[in-house]
Amino acid sequence: MNTELVVKIALKSWDFEYNRFKKLLDKISNEQLLKEVAPGKNTGIYLLGHLTAVTDAMRPMFGLGTALFPELGLPFISTPDKAGLEFPEPDALRHMWAQVMEKANADFHNMPAEDWFKRHNSMTDEDFVKEPHRNRFSVLMSRTIHQGYHAGQVALLVEKTA
Amino acid sequence: MNTELVVKIALKSWDFEYNRFKKLLDKISNEQLLKEVAPGKNTGIYLLGHLTAVTDAMRPMFGLGTALFPELGLPFISTPDKAGLEFPEPDALRHMWAQVMEKANADFHNMPAEDWFKRHNSMTDEDFVKEPHRNRFSVLMSRTIHQGYHAGQVALLVEKTA
Repeated sequence: MNTELVVKIALKSWDFEYNRFKKLLDKISNEQLLKEVAPGKNTGIYLLGHLTAVTDAMRPMFGLGTALFPELGLPFISTPDKAGLEFPEPDALRHMWAQVMEKANADFHNMPAEDWFKRHNSMTDEDFVKEPHRNRFSVLMSRTIHQGYHAGQVALLVEKTA
Repeated sequence: MNTELVVKIALKSWDFEYNRFKKLLDKISNEQLLKEVAPGKNTGIYLLGHLTAVTDAMRPMFGLGTALFPELGLPFISTPDKAGLEFPEPDALRHMWAQVMEKANADFHNMPAEDWFKRHNSMTDEDFVKEPHRNRFSVLMSRTIHQGYHAGQVALLVEKTA
């Protein structure tokens, strides 16, 4: 087993989730995006902002640069939906999502395979010695699953074609 | 980077999803489980059966034994929800899910780390030479994400506590 192959597998999953979510967004109107995914639950726009902010925080975590839209952390990570905070317009947020994903995808594919098994910036050197499995690779896996978790919810906004 | 560490990371994600779904099921009554996760969408019981059948098919795919409940494939994989097929009672299906997961979890944790990078039974030797990234490890990753995708939907059945 080689490192390149393992990283290729993980990035294939990441890319798969990216493409699935992109197709989902194309099928959902701005009007639908403002709706709740199920009665009383999060809105589509909140989940779009949440995924954008979470992915945007990955590059700084991996030491690959700064977040493009750090201002999204407050409304979409630290605060739950429907708390009265203002959200960007749907088209603006779709554009932010696309920019964040494009940058993350490029940087992730360019990272040397062995770097995925290095420490990330949310871990101290001391903690990393104790828990070497908490590396960039494990963050990539958990973020990919996180993206799938919310994609399953956003998919509920797609209207069935008869 | 070593093989054991990579497998440990992937199994940690798998275990995380297992525990999350287990907790979800504990919070959902049988009555709620029969409901649709959103208006016009799949029912909770269909998704529970779907995840049970998909996980149950992994052990034969990896050459670890036979499926415990192969009869779940027809109603929960080959057929969509609400097609008129009979489902097991909620309690019976919960028990099947628990048995399938227990067996899969034990077998997955016992598999030698290097075996995760071997061919699985849905690939021919010929195909595997061309696409070595389509191994058991990649199936584990995609099934973990798949579980997360539907967990996000089943989570919508949990009633908010005031």
